[in-house]
Amino acid sequence: MEDKLKQLKSILGEVIDLRYVSLLLGWDQQTYMPPGGAEDRGYRMATVDQIAHVKFTSNEVGKLLDELEPWAAQLDPDSDEARLIKVTRREYDKLTKVPPEMVAELSQIATAAFSAWQKAKAESNFAKFRPHLEKVVDWKRRYVALFAPFDHAYDVLLDDFEPGMKTAEVKAIFDVLRPQQMALIKAISERPQVDDSFLHQPFDERKQWDFGIEVAAKLGYDWNRGRQDKSAHPFTTAFGLDDVRITTRFLPDFFSSAFFSTTHESGHALYDQGLGRSLARTPLADGASYAIHESQSRMWENLVGRSHPFWEGFYPRLKEYFPAQLGNVSLEAFYKGINLVQPSLVRVESDEATYNLHIMLRLEIEISLIEGSLQVKDLPEVWKARMQEYLGLIPPDDAQGVLQDVHWSTGSIGYFSTYALGNLISAQLWERANADIPDLSDQIRRGEFSGLLGWLREKIHRHGKKFKPQELVQRVTGSKIDPEPYLRYLRTKYSEIYGL
Amino acid sequence: MEDKLKQLKSILGEVIDLRYVSLLLGWDQQTYMPPGGAEDRGYRMATVDQIAHVKFTSNEVGKLLDELEPWAAQLDPDSDEARLIKVTRREYDKLTKVPPEMVAELSQIATAAFSAWQKAKAESNFAKFRPHLEKVVDWKRRYVALFAPFDHAYDVLLDDFEPGMKTAEVKAIFDVLRPQQMALIKAISERPQVDDSFLHQPFDERKQWDFGIEVAAKLGYDWNRGRQDKSAHPFTTAFGLDDVRITTRFLPDFFSSAFFSTTHESGHALYDQGLGRSLARTPLADGASYAIHESQSRMWENLVGRSHPFWEGFYPRLKEYFPAQLGNVSLEAFYKGINLVQPSLVRVESDEATYNLHIMLRLEIEISLIEGSLQVKDLPEVWKARMQEYLGLIPPDDAQGVLQDVHWSTGSIGYFSTYALGNLISAQLWERANADIPDLSDQIRRGEFSGLLGWLREKIHRHGKKFKPQELVQRVTGSKIDPEPYLRYLRTKYSEIYGL
Repeated sequence: MEDKLKQLKSILGEVIDLRYVSLLLGWDQQTYMPPGGAEDRGYRMATVDQIAHVKFTSNEVGKLLDELEPWAAQLDPDSDEARLIKVTRREYDKLTKVPPEMVAELSQIATAAFSAWQKAKAESNFAKFRPHLEKVVDWKRRYVALFAPFDHAYDVLLDDFEPGMKTAEVKAIFDVLRPQQMALIKAISERPQVDDSFLHQPFDERKQWDFGIEVAAKLGYDWNRGRQDKSAHPFTTAFGLDDVRITTRFLPDFFSSAFFSTTHESGHALYDQGLGRSLARTPLADGASYAIHESQSRMWENLVGRSHPFWEGFYPRLKEYFPAQLGNVSLEAFYKGINLVQPSLVRVESDEATYNLHIMLRLEIEISLIEGSLQVKDLPEVWKARMQEYLGLIPPDDAQGVLQDVHWSTGSIGYFSTYALGNLISAQLWERANADIPDLSDQIRRGEFSGLLGWLREKIHRHGKKFKPQELVQRVTGSKIDPEPYLRYLRTKYSEIYGL
Repeated sequence: MEDKLKQLKSILGEVIDLRYVSLLLGWDQQTYMPPGGAEDRGYRMATVDQIAHVKFTSNEVGKLLDELEPWAAQLDPDSDEARLIKVTRREYDKLTKVPPEMVAELSQIATAAFSAWQKAKAESNFAKFRPHLEKVVDWKRRYVALFAPFDHAYDVLLDDFEPGMKTAEVKAIFDVLRPQQMALIKAISERPQVDDSFLHQPFDERKQWDFGIEVAAKLGYDWNRGRQDKSAHPFTTAFGLDDVRITTRFLPDFFSSAFFSTTHESGHALYDQGLGRSLARTPLADGASYAIHESQSRMWENLVGRSHPFWEGFYPRLKEYFPAQLGNVSLEAFYKGINLVQPSLVRVESDEATYNLHIMLRLEIEISLIEGSLQVKDLPEVWKARMQEYLGLIPPDDAQGVLQDVHWSTGSIGYFSTYALGNLISAQLWERANADIPDLSDQIRRGEFSGLLGWLREKIHRHGKKFKPQELVQRVTGSKIDPEPYLRYLRTKYSEIYGL
């Protein structure tokens, strides 16, 4: 059987190589590729993706799995080998259910939809995007049908991002969250507002860059196995355990944008750099799920990077970089400024207190689209109505409304809720980490992050994709994904900042 | 048959995609990859290369070629289709002759040899490299044996770089060249020497960069379909017709290095950007040979970039960039300075008059190694003796002698002569271009390069790999590769500069 396992790992190793290569093509496209290269890049990526797909879904892999499963059943169920067979089987069964023509069809739909979305957003013209989104939704409904029976049609899509997660679970979590976050925002809005004008001044890009790099290194980002570049939208991408890259973008007149993007992406990168080395070149060398990944980025960005102890340590250093801008701004004023709560039309600009509401709105729309109870043509109106209800704002146009996010145009439906789940998980892990490391706040105050990073490495990172997200959260915290720790975190933090 | 052709082109398209992807992996490795990523990068490249190899050498391709050849025989023999079948057949027959295990073996030998060479060169210790080079030579001799019978064993290696070229042809050319270049160098050495000390001053890197980019754009490099980055050794790489990138390196205290590297690599890039669009994603979308490619880089670097008319146009502009360094240097002094002749130990630092002698030395050594008349262990001594004979210099150590070039460590034997052949072809094309464009010098003086570029596009670039190098040179100039135009060029240029 060791021979069969070796054979399987050899095929999977090539598949993983090709997936990393595809990611490099994407990274290059968003960082350094000259504009003229765009069309050809599509061919290259399609070729690589298709070869990886064919290799992974081959009968050979199916046969090896059949042969290995009885053997794996006798191993420790948490061993790398047993989990490798289990996770590979899961992915194999999913991917082989979809006819190759349908995969190619989505790729074509998405290419056209992405380009239409770019134009539609630039012109704030939903009509230009509508027929493309209709095709995406239609494809997704046909895709869902391949996996019948199911508890809920949307489960199939959610599962692509959160293995094993059910729509009913997410809805139940959001039902607890929604009224309490809305009440919190309302309470905040009735208090004297925070001033963050000092964050909106010219900040030299080079200095912003250097400070971000310096902090990320302190957090534990191994720059020998990583790098930072600029791109239109910040992202993290890994080409293996030893080459994990982040990108950021700079606003010349606003400090928070690049810095918190660097800490956010560093959180993703720390996860990818910490995956178990024994899992390399297998499907287990990946994050457990999108939400677990997001829990890492949000933890370093917010629970660490927007915390009072963090800035007790770093604010003097930041003032050395920007004496003119921050020399007269106290630590307290700075801390409040970076934690300003202000309902916003745009998800990616929103703060910790309002962010999840943006997600709930999207989840409800996606579920209705897949159920068929909402038509694409009615999206702009539904969006506006829901925004007014949740955040008290009405987008003046669709560019700042239903057209703001790229996800649907790339064929991603089922993705959004992972952002909110990531927030919740980050707070659950945070409570547990603080229980396990009683002086964690002091460590952070002193600029020491190896305690927290070591804890995350041990509890989360090294396991890679061995466990499903709910399973992993349960193992680490003793309960499933739970909104209460995040609500406690928000209430404590903002009560203090806004004097609630 | 159109269906069969479509099938063949579809497979070849994927092979070409993968080859471009492999080149991107290489480009990234030499520009932005973090150091930690090196080991994994080897896996990624091996996987991509191997899949491309298996796909190209499949029975399916062989069968399609068998079926298509009778049909192609009835087409215009110069048509894209006829040439595609011919060139693909040639490559297919070569690649299928080599057992996959042997391909993998060379890859392993070369990986170890490259790393040993880096250490050996750093320590100037040939003994460290010797066993690896012996393995390379042994492999190459076994490789050659697969292609028996042949006129000369070395033909097989030469053919990998210069399709159809024979060792006897190259030897005959070099036999004409050697005594005349040696005589020229001797004559120059007896004249008052040129002063180039003003080139050895601090030159701001940003300004060097900007001037190089500006000039390359004037030459016709389409930056919308290209870019420049920094790397340890300058190179050009294409990921398709619309994404052709160059790299350069900067010496802070020497002007010539980065500038002539940028014009050299721009010459390669202009070729790759000018390949016929109808040839895209086929094996014809490539240079005709290494020597033809080098003829383009050397033409733009030397026949254009080191010419008097070129600097009549650009020298005032260069002085605007560097008034402190060049304000008091006349055009004549500058022109002589950048054309200084000075025998050097190191090939990549050598001038137009001495360069080819470095190549001849290497060719003779390679031929003797493959014939078996020279043993690897005797290389350092042979190198020193030949250097003294040709250039009057004895390397003080092996780092500046036999260990200076990377080529052998990567398994490339047969490559070197393409550099000298490229020089010769550049002068042949130059004579023809001047005959076809009588006012070419005036155009260059005015900074107009579209006449020359258009001529090269028409005569060379658009044909891609359709013709073998000798065939292409014959078609354009009316004769095969011929050393006389280059000798005439050298004599005319240096007679004037050195008053011979």
